[in-house]
Amino acid sequence: MIFVGFGFLMTFLKRYGFGAVGFNFLLAAFGIQWALLMQGWFHSFKNGKILIGVENLINADFCVGSVCIAFGAILGKTSPIQLLVMTLFQVTLFSVNEYILLNLLHVKDAGGSMTIHTFGAYFGLTVTRILYRPNLEQSKDKQGSVYHSDLFAMIGTLYLWMYWPSFNSAISEHGDAQHRSAINTYCSLAACVLTTMAFSSMLQKKGKLDMVHIQNATLAGGVAVGTSAEMMLTPYGSLIVGSISGIVSTVGYVYFTPFLESRLHIQDTCGIHNLHAMPGLIGGIVGAITAAAATEDVYGKEGFIKAFDFTGVYQTRTPSVQGGFQAAGIVVSLLMAFVGGAIVGGILKLPIWGDAAAENCFEDEVYWEVPEDEESDVYHMHNPDKPTSP
Amino acid sequence: MIFVGFGFLMTFLKRYGFGAVGFNFLLAAFGIQWALLMQGWFHSFKNGKILIGVENLINADFCVGSVCIAFGAILGKTSPIQLLVMTLFQVTLFSVNEYILLNLLHVKDAGGSMTIHTFGAYFGLTVTRILYRPNLEQSKDKQGSVYHSDLFAMIGTLYLWMYWPSFNSAISEHGDAQHRSAINTYCSLAACVLTTMAFSSMLQKKGKLDMVHIQNATLAGGVAVGTSAEMMLTPYGSLIVGSISGIVSTVGYVYFTPFLESRLHIQDTCGIHNLHAMPGLIGGIVGAITAAAATEDVYGKEGFIKAFDFTGVYQTRTPSVQGGFQAAGIVVSLLMAFVGGAIVGGILKLPIWGDAAAENCFEDEVYWEVPEDEESDVYHMHNPDKPTSP
Amino acid sequence: MIFVGFGFLMTFLKRYGFGAVGFNFLLAAFGIQWALLMQGWFHSFKNGKILIGVENLINADFCVGSVCIAFGAILGKTSPIQLLVMTLFQVTLFSVNEYILLNLLHVKDAGGSMTIHTFGAYFGLTVTRILYRPNLEQSKDKQGSVYHSDLFAMIGTLYLWMYWPSFNSAISEHGDAQHRSAINTYCSLAACVLTTMAFSSMLQKKGKLDMVHIQNATLAGGVAVGTSAEMMLTPYGSLIVGSISGIVSTVGYVYFTPFLESRLHIQDTCGIHNLHAMPGLIGGIVGAITAAAATEDVYGKEGFIKAFDFTGVYQTRTPSVQGGFQAAGIVVSLLMAFVGGAIVGGILKLPIWGDAAAENCFEDEVYWEVPEDEESDVYHMHNPDKPTSP
Repeated sequence: MIFVGFGFLMTFLKRYGFGAVGFNFLLAAFGIQWALLMQGWFHSFKNGKILIGVENLINADFCVGSVCIAFGAILGKTSPIQLLVMTLFQVTLFSVNEYILLNLLHVKDAGGSMTIHTFGAYFGLTVTRILYRPNLEQSKDKQGSVYHSDLFAMIGTLYLWMYWPSFNSAISEHGDAQHRSAINTYCSLAACVLTTMAFSSMLQKKGKLDMVHIQNATLAGGVAVGTSAEMMLTPYGSLIVGSISGIVSTVGYVYFTPFLESRLHIQDTCGIHNLHAMPGLIGGIVGAITAAAATEDVYGKEGFIKAFDFTGVYQTRTPSVQGGFQAAGIVVSLLMAFVGGAIVGGILKLPIWGDAAAENCFEDEVYWEVPEDEESDVYHMHNPDKPTSP
Repeated sequence: MIFVGFGFLMTFLKRYGFGAVGFNFLLAAFGIQWALLMQGWFHSFKNGKILIGVENLINADFCVGSVCIAFGAILGKTSPIQLLVMTLFQVTLFSVNEYILLNLLHVKDAGGSMTIHTFGAYFGLTVTRILYRPNLEQSKDKQGSVYHSDLFAMIGTLYLWMYWPSFNSAISEHGDAQHRSAINTYCSLAACVLTTMAFSSMLQKKGKLDMVHIQNATLAGGVAVGTSAEMMLTPYGSLIVGSISGIVSTVGYVYFTPFLESRLHIQDTCGIHNLHAMPGLIGGIVGAITAAAATEDVYGKEGFIKAFDFTGVYQTRTPSVQGGFQAAGIVVSLLMAFVGGAIVGGILKLPIWGDAAAENCFEDEVYWEVPEDEESDVYHMHNPDKPTSP
Repeated sequence: MIFVGFGFLMTFLKRYGFGAVGFNFLLAAFGIQWALLMQGWFHSFKNGKILIGVENLINADFCVGSVCIAFGAILGKTSPIQLLVMTLFQVTLFSVNEYILLNLLHVKDAGGSMTIHTFGAYFGLTVTRILYRPNLEQSKDKQGSVYHSDLFAMIGTLYLWMYWPSFNSAISEHGDAQHRSAINTYCSLAACVLTTMAFSSMLQKKGKLDMVHIQNATLAGGVAVGTSAEMMLTPYGSLIVGSISGIVSTVGYVYFTPFLESRLHIQDTCGIHNLHAMPGLIGGIVGAITAAAATEDVYGKEGFIKAFDFTGVYQTRTPSVQGGFQAAGIVVSLLMAFVGGAIVGGILKLPIWGDAAAENCFEDEVYWEVPEDEESDVYHMHNPDKPTSP
């Protein structure tokens, strides 16, 4: 999922399809191995050996998901070496953050609204802020998409959309919680598509739809129920959360992204602020509220304890306290993202990683053997110096 | 499956890839929510609440499948608003039809040959008949495909092909019936590919293969065993049904579609008559025959009762009576499709939905922000007024 | 998996996308039916009937996988009839080879390093050697890729990559062996991506990455643990095997493929020698070593017997003897591939199958109705004879 979904979601750039898919592949493969080690040390270390099961692989996947999100912000502006360095640090920070949230604060976050999306997105945004390139205007024309590259990106979108319910429910408790999670996510995503379409059309001149919104904002609904999906959010609640996140995300693309770039000097290639950062925050807050509002009536006595793991030392925790800890989880994730992002961004700014010049950004030619393509073929066809055969 | 499969299957149009994927996405997301409500009211309404489980989601998916099929007939000729209105009505009619078939007539239709394909296709064909546009010739050239758009469509085809066995067996009884269903569908699909290839080559001038047939007719085998797959069709039976449906479908593309358009004024953009309507009918008929031919010898006493749910009030129903009811199910589906399609078509013909002019059909520009693409890039490159850098 | 994965992996050719996807589809559908019959006769024949279950479908899929591999070597140089004839013979030989290995030699090969990859690849290479076309230089320019065709191929790569762990573990014993298999494959694949990227960059002039390597060599890690994945290879072992196979495969693309073509007259369109033949051999050897090194300490008494099926007549077989038999399995597979490939190649060389002329190789036009595409559109746009509207 991580590979196909995120990889193709980023292929929308005209001249950077190889880089998007290829580098995403590289950092995911590297990240998974490193994440297996890191998470092994933090969560399943016994007798000097790391116990690996299928759940560890899923967790490593999630961890890499947060790296892919951050990659979205700096897409096209960094060298492969810089990406590997960033992956190395971010996976480490992700594991520390996850350890604090899940083990110390005893926070529930099955779909990773906080650990994956909020952390990953604000981390990436901080890094891209530090790596600000004032001369990026020069390659402005390469930041656009072409007709076919938008269709490739839609493969990624639909793929992610389809598997998001499985994603959010992957590590939920089997049975009730898992079903609940899948259904809530499904409802939220469906509602999100509708509001995205409606607002994309409303905010655009002449009421036309914008493919960028459809590619991205339609997924915000899945992000926004990441924390609360396995709780008793109810389908109606999911529909509301999904609708709101679709609106927020679309509005973000139209108004926030240009604002971030011109005022705050945050160059966010894929618009992860709209797809991951804001919906992730919404997801964290909704999760805190849903947890705080939980009662034994709704969950049943047994289900209540199981849903929040109120066992052992947490036996006496009440829902409202849990809500408070959930809120604390958001704050911790944000802090980790800002501080970590600033440090890693500083490291990446060192002039030893061989990053591309500003005029070469968003250009595959720098790192890839690019086949001569249609356009140049045609160009030669009309070149009077060379005789051509159509 | 619905999203990737149907969405990309329709991207073959040269200038309408965004519309195909995007609008399919929109109506599927809307349809699923509406279908959850409708099916909830009809099938799982208790104490003023709708009980939602994973099976409901699958059923809603199926329902939306029938909308996507109808969408195939009117692809490129309607506005998003018209699509939403059609979805609204069609989902309602689908639920009524399904209720009559499954609950009142006690018909078996696990893969939906009748409820999804026959109903959806004839509904769509009736709507497109009512919406007939005599001046569509003007945009004839936009109805073609280009090399890459055909490859995108193949993604849809292969995706649907691969998941069709799961699709047909999704709501079958676990165990024997489900396995039977998957294996029968698999055999039918494999046979269908062979006859499609053979006939595509035979019917074309110079024996060349036509990509349109490969994209569509290869799936007819899955449609044609929809009803009977979970019964004792036997692999040999599946191979025969698959072969026949491949032939019928390919012949349909070559001879029927032009005939429908010129004589009956039915403009069938995706050729759903060949992929869904005719194979759906075949599927219904094969299902009726297979049910009528069922004996306790073949199924075993217990399996026999389980296969057809001959319990409760249906305890005394014999296989031949069941066959008759299956046949009645086909007739009911057809009637619902024709009458419903005529009414909905009439509603869509009202001049309040803002549909596109005939010369704008099959053109993404009308509803989408389309990036300047390769062709125009090249055009500018040769435009003497603007200096260009290759 | 077979359909999407292999189909799109081969779409990298500029003018042969239809052929790659379409013919792959054709031979897979044909091969599966034939394989079901063949494997039925060899493995599950009872009372004159073939018992078909889901496992048979998986096995048929595997068998077809080996045909698809061989297809990679001759891609673009054969007619559909030749492909069907090759499929007919290769499936038969595959079944015989599988029968000798699994039933007579009692060899373990869950992921098919020997039966699928080694056999399929060397079979295909022998066939392409026999069908050597000295004038293929003429269509050299059509053997290249274009930007979008490389992205289509990446869909295939990522798809295969993602499902490879399921592929290798599909027919392993449920429980421990299956989990082990998935995890080992996963580790090997991840390591393989890293070494492929590193070596692709190192071996290329200017350190640029080559898309062909990323598309293919990244999968070598999955091939190379096919036999041993379900054994106690340990994650560390998997990482090492994956790393090595990535290096071997990338080096193969850079140095071996040109050598094979110029010296040995083996024209290997997709480079299956690098992706399947060499990693398959590695996989067989690693499997033999891992089997020979097995001890009861590591597997546990019961697990040990279960892992290698040391029951019945094989009760007294020791690990080192098993290792010997594994090695014998490699030799048998190679012999079958060379002898079988030579015979089938000879049959295909008969001038009765209507193969394309050398200048028509790698060209869809010969067998497909190809839509007029962008380039020619643009060409006409600049054609002074026709007035154009941009």
